[in-house]
This record gives sequence, C-alpha cells and structure tokens, in this order.
Amino acid sequence: MARRESAVAGPGSRALVVDLIRSAGPISRVELVEATGLTQPTISNIVRRLIDDGVVRETGATVATGGKPRTLLVINSRSAYGVGIRVGADTLTCVVTDTRGGTIGRELVSAPPAEKPEDVVAQLASLYRDVTQGLGLSPQSVAGLAVVGPGPVDVARGRFLALPGLERWADLELGQALTAQLGVPVLVDSDAAAAAVGEFWGRQVSRERTFGCLYMNSGIGSGVVLDGALHRGASSNAGEIGHVSVVRDGARCRCGSRGCLELYAAPAALVDRARAIPNLANRLKIRPDDPDARAFDVLARAAIYGDGQARALVDESALLLADGAMTLANLWDLDTLVLAGPGFAVAGSLYVSEIRRRLAERAFSRKIHVVQVDLSSNPRDSAAIGGAALVLQGSVAPGHGPQVAATHA
Amino acid sequence: MARRESAVAGPGSRALVVDLIRSAGPISRVELVEATGLTQPTISNIVRRLIDDGVVRETGATVATGGKPRTLLVINSRSAYGVGIRVGADTLTCVVTDTRGGTIGRELVSAPPAEKPEDVVAQLASLYRDVTQGLGLSPQSVAGLAVVGPGPVDVARGRFLALPGLERWADLELGQALTAQLGVPVLVDSDAAAAAVGEFWGRQVSRERTFGCLYMNSGIGSGVVLDGALHRGASSNAGEIGHVSVVRDGARCRCGSRGCLELYAAPAALVDRARAIPNLANRLKIRPDDPDARAFDVLARAAIYGDGQARALVDESALLLADGAMTLANLWDLDTLVLAGPGFAVAGSLYVSEIRRRLAERAFSRKIHVVQVDLSSNPRDSAAIGGAALVLQGSVAPGHGPQVAATHA
Repeated sequence: MARRESAVAGPGSRALVVDLIRSAGPISRVELVEATGLTQPTISNIVRRLIDDGVVRETGATVATGGKPRTLLVINSRSAYGVGIRVGADTLTCVVTDTRGGTIGRELVSAPPAEKPEDVVAQLASLYRDVTQGLGLSPQSVAGLAVVGPGPVDVARGRFLALPGLERWADLELGQALTAQLGVPVLVDSDAAAAAVGEFWGRQVSRERTFGCLYMNSGIGSGVVLDGALHRGASSNAGEIGHVSVVRDGARCRCGSRGCLELYAAPAALVDRARAIPNLANRLKIRPDDPDARAFDVLARAAIYGDGQARALVDESALLLADGAMTLANLWDLDTLVLAGPGFAVAGSLYVSEIRRRLAERAFSRKIHVVQVDLSSNPRDSAAIGGAALVLQGSVAPGHGPQVAATHA
Repeated sequence: MARRESAVAGPGSRALVVDLIRSAGPISRVELVEATGLTQPTISNIVRRLIDDGVVRETGATVATGGKPRTLLVINSRSAYGVGIRVGADTLTCVVTDTRGGTIGRELVSAPPAEKPEDVVAQLASLYRDVTQGLGLSPQSVAGLAVVGPGPVDVARGRFLALPGLERWADLELGQALTAQLGVPVLVDSDAAAAAVGEFWGRQVSRERTFGCLYMNSGIGSGVVLDGALHRGASSNAGEIGHVSVVRDGARCRCGSRGCLELYAAPAALVDRARAIPNLANRLKIRPDDPDARAFDVLARAAIYGDGQARALVDESALLLADGAMTLANLWDLDTLVLAGPGFAVAGSLYVSEIRRRLAERAFSRKIHVVQVDLSSNPRDSAAIGGAALVLQGSVAPGHGPQVAATHA
C-alpha cells in the first residue's frame, strides 16, 4: 500500500525503536533491524542506551534461531509515568498512565467556572498532587503533565487561547505557571490532538497507517498520526474540522469564521434544539439548569433507546459529522478513523454507523481501499490518556514529542 | 515554531541529505551534520556514495574556518533528467527538468479524445520520444517518466481511475504499458500532488514548513508536503479538496458524492454559467465549440480587464475556493499555500487576493501565525514539472519517491 514517503534521519531513531518495541514487543534486535532499516550497530547502540535509561528491558526469554539465540526486548512499563488532565466545560479528568499506555489512576472532578486565573492554576495543581500522591508516585518517576483542552492552543508558550471559562485570560501561561508550582515539565495541547495520539498508542496500529481521530466534546476537532507521530502543522493547531464552514454566511463562530460545523453538530447545538421542541426537554427530564454535556448525554441515551424526536436530532448531527469525516478521509486519505471524546460516549454507535455508511458510499478512494471506522473503547478519557502519552513520548523518546522541558524550563 | 514531530530512521537519510544540498547548497559536510543531526561518519558515507553515483559533486571551492578548510557540495544538476507529462482534458504538456529542478525542455500538444487505449499509450510514448530525442538526451541519462492527471489514481498499478477521455479504460495499466514501450521507469500520479512537489522543489522552502498547494485545472485538488516529503496517505489519494461537499444534497459528482466544491467553482462550472447569461458569451467571443479550458481563459481575462459580469463569476468561484483554502489551512495548519494549475494561469491574482483576505480574517490559528499565500510562477506547467521532480526524487534519493522501478519492472 502506498503511503507517505518517509523523511528520515538520525535523531528520531530512538523514538522509532521505542514505538516499535511498544507496538510489536517482545521483539529481538534482529527484528528491529529488519523493521527499521537501521544498521545492526545503530540498533545495538540505541537499545543499550534505552536499557541504561530504564526505558526498555530484556525479558529474559530468548528465541532459538539455529544460530545465536535472540534476546527479546519489551518496554519497561514502570520506568516512568505520564499524567494527563483534560479540561472540559465543567469537569477536569486526570489520568495517569505507564509507559505502555496502561491507565494506573483516574480522577474526575467538577470544575466550576473560576473567578481568577490563579484559581485555575491552583485547581489543576491540587488535582495533580492528589492523584500522584494517592498513587504513591515519587516525583522522580513522573515524566510530566499535559493539560489538554479545546484549541486554539499556543504550544510554545503553554497557553490556551480560548479555553471555556478562561477566555478572558488567554495570556495566562498555564504551562509555565504549573511547572513553577509542581516542579515537573508541563505541556499544554489540544484535546483532539492528544486523543489521536492516545488512540494510536492504545491500539496495535502499524506506523504505516494514516490514522485519524475525530473528537467531539463541547467542540469538534480531529488529529492525525502519520508515520507514528502526530501531525502538528505550523503551530500545533491542525485538524480543526469543527471550524470548516458548512453553512455559507452562517452564524458567527467563536473562532471568527462563519457557519462552522460545530455550531450545527456539537452537543450544545443539539441541546439548544431539543430545548426548543415543546415538551421534549420535559419528557426526557432535561432540566433548565443542566449543563450542556449532561443534557446531551440524556438526549443521546433517549436516541439510543428509540425516542423518535431525540433520534432525529442525533441523526441530523451524525449526517453533519459524516460530512466532516468525508473531508478528513478525502484530505488525508485515511486508513483508519476513530471516534473519541465525551460527545461519542453514549450514542457513539449511531455516529459510527452513519460515518461508515457515508465513507463506504462516497469516499474518494473507496474503489482502492476501505476506511476503517471505529469507536474508541474509552471515549470520555481518550484525550486525558493521550495527554499522558504525549508526555511519555517526549520523555522516553526525545525529539518525538513536544520539547517539554525546553519549552517550559 | 512547532511542527510535525519527525519520525526518523536510517533509509531516508540519503533523501534528507539530497534535499538539503538542493535547497541550501553549496553546503559543507559540517553544515550537513548540524542540519540533519546525523553523525559525521554517517554524513561522510552518504556524501561519498552520492558523489560516486554522480548525484552530488564538490564545487572545488572551500570555506576557511581557522581549522581544516571545508569543501562545499552541490547537486550535480546534469547527472539525470526527469520527464513529466501532464494529461489535461485536451492537451498534453511535457516537461524535462534536471536534478536541480531547472526546466530544460517543454512541449505542448493537443490531445484529441482517443478511440482506443493503445492510442493513448502511443501518443504519450511518441511525445516522450520527441522531447527527449529533440534534446539529445541519452536513454541512460533519463531517470524516468511521470504521467500526472486528475485523480483518483492507483499508484501501485499505474492507473488513472477516471482520466478525462479515458474513463472507460480505468483498467489500463498505463505505467506498465509505457514502461514496456519506453524502457524507462514510468509512474502515474495525481496532478495536484505532483504540483505540490514541484512547487516545493522550485522554492527555497525549509523542510520544516507545512507546505500546501491548491491546484485547479478541469478539477480542483491539493497536495501537502510535510518534512520535505509529499503526504500520500493510504493510497496516494490525499488532498481531494475538490470533493469536499459544499452544497448539502447538491448535484451528483463524478466521484460518487454530492455537492462537491469542483462542481460549483471549477472552470467548467463558470463557463456553463457564462454561457447561460444572455449575450455574455457572444460579447466575450466565447464560441459554442470552444473547449472549457479555452473558454475559461477568455472569461478570466475579461474579469481581469474589468468586465463586470465576468468578474462576478470569477469572484463567486474565488469565494468558494477561499472556503476550500480555509479547510486546507485549518486541517493541515499550513505555513504556506501556493495556487497552481492552468485554472489560475490568467486570473490567479484575483483568487490569491480573496484567499489571502479570508485566511487573514478567519483562519483558526491566525492569532498565532500568518498563512502565506502565493501564486505559482508557472501555473500551467506546475504539475508536469512536479511529475519530473517526483521521478528525480525517486531516482536520486531511493526511498523518498514512489518505488518506480519496483512497481513497474
């Protein structure tokens, strides 16, 4: 299968080897030579350094080959931990993973709109401390923290430019403020990008696949993983499918454009429409003061259980997201598209069906290959897990993730 | 500036070094070490092999450094030639370039709709022979031929699935048929993808830029170059911006979808609309039997010279293409977008203005960075030049371009 031509050189070889051991391990050095195209001495050097750094270990098992038996290598899953916090409209989700992507801790807290930037910093710092101390993790064993939320993000300065509840404080350098309090590297990134990395890490996906993730929370975004690494683009603000215009001269969007997909298909839009239908909110027991996310879950559950009016609203949103999925598939020529994010937690199966159908019928390259469409196995935590993965990528495989320490030191 | 994280290993190092010498040369080995992060022995080995293969040569000049003087390296531009043929609706454009991307020969022929697949093969073979023999190129000095045209393409089998005039013969393995006749490697690829590569090669663009090309001929497509290499996706059918749906439940498109951008914004759509306006075609001297491409050039020229009705049609198309450019910028987070293709040859400046304005006002990451929008310096030949570049990439830097010889041998 044709794919992106690899642009390849030395410094990322370590990242490549780590990724291969993670996805294909246990694996021998000889197999690494075959899989990477790197020379045997290069592989030996990289593996020796990874073992010295505690990132990789030998299993003790060997494979008989007729010649010299081959020692097998695996990721040393407990060599470091990554922490990811997803900032939602009214919740914070904190997840801790090991270097194999296994979740070892999770905490969900409600986050009322903060009055001052200091409150936000304090709340995030306190959540981080609670979770890491509760797990008994030594400060040295934590590779860092990623705070992920809706874009646009300024990764270089560790800022969210339009975080719900924090729009007024777009100048707050959250990464730096948290690093100062916590003493670990802290990076700030988009939730959709993090989810893409998390979903990629969590699956046995070949690096050669063009892997996309469609993410829905309060907004709609996406991320793409190419050759095993997140596509960042010019400023780490790639994948903004929620801000593709679907209605010409449509409503003004928070992003400054008009008629954006997320104005018509995201949870808040559906909840608004549901509230405008006489008696529907009442019948479904959606209360006037329910936050959008909760109201949407109720609506989505009703759709799944066969409520006609609720189902019609979700179907309309699914049609719009199928348009978005078509755009992603046709621009990236995707092998795989995973749906993740809290917006798919309840009625994800309805969205998956509609998107599968559309891509099978209309995707530009459907006569050459199928686009596989899957639902995340953990849509609500996907971005937080991905945040932890981003931290660990940067720590176990320097040059692969964002330069956390360099940015925030 | 943040960018795609590089996934990096051994086999593409040669491609990287060739690209750097091409874009930054004359350059010393020490500078190559700094720019690539590869070790000095690795750079020495790669450069020695490139010199042995005739791809790179030493300039003879040296740079005094206080220590040992540094010898400078440049691409040996006459070591090999690439040939690109762009297949248009009624023309074939053939271009020959050297390894530095300089055009050394060009021929444009009209291509009446062929009756049989053999005629197409014969016509392309004859054009190739005319041009290469006319330039006195020895068969050994030609790295290969790329035939580029509208997608979808099946790069692995060297087929166009829907080439204008050839739709009925989607089974024709054009690459293989031409290889058999010409005795050189022949690859088949999309015109928009080729144009992206050609525009990237022809400019002094840093590999770190996220570089996009919006291409308009009879259809509308795009290509993106990431880390110096074309993004191919699952099946080399990425970038299909012309088949993003802009009108819900709109007209049926040849691609199988509905309401596609190119149905409303491409030259044929504008020419149809112009012909439907009483007296406009007459006044502009567009004849009933003029092919769309010619009629569109007349219309575009009238728009440039201030004809109100013609200008209104082009402006409407420019607004739609600005939507498309927004989608490309927001999904790929572009640094640079170049407009190329015959559709931009006459009124390109009108399109550039509209797209610049839109991206400056509404692009998702406009508060973090500007998207630079340029017009190709040679919009008509861009795809053919890019085809030649694709061939040369594959030949001077194996592993970088499509595996021409392996595919068609």
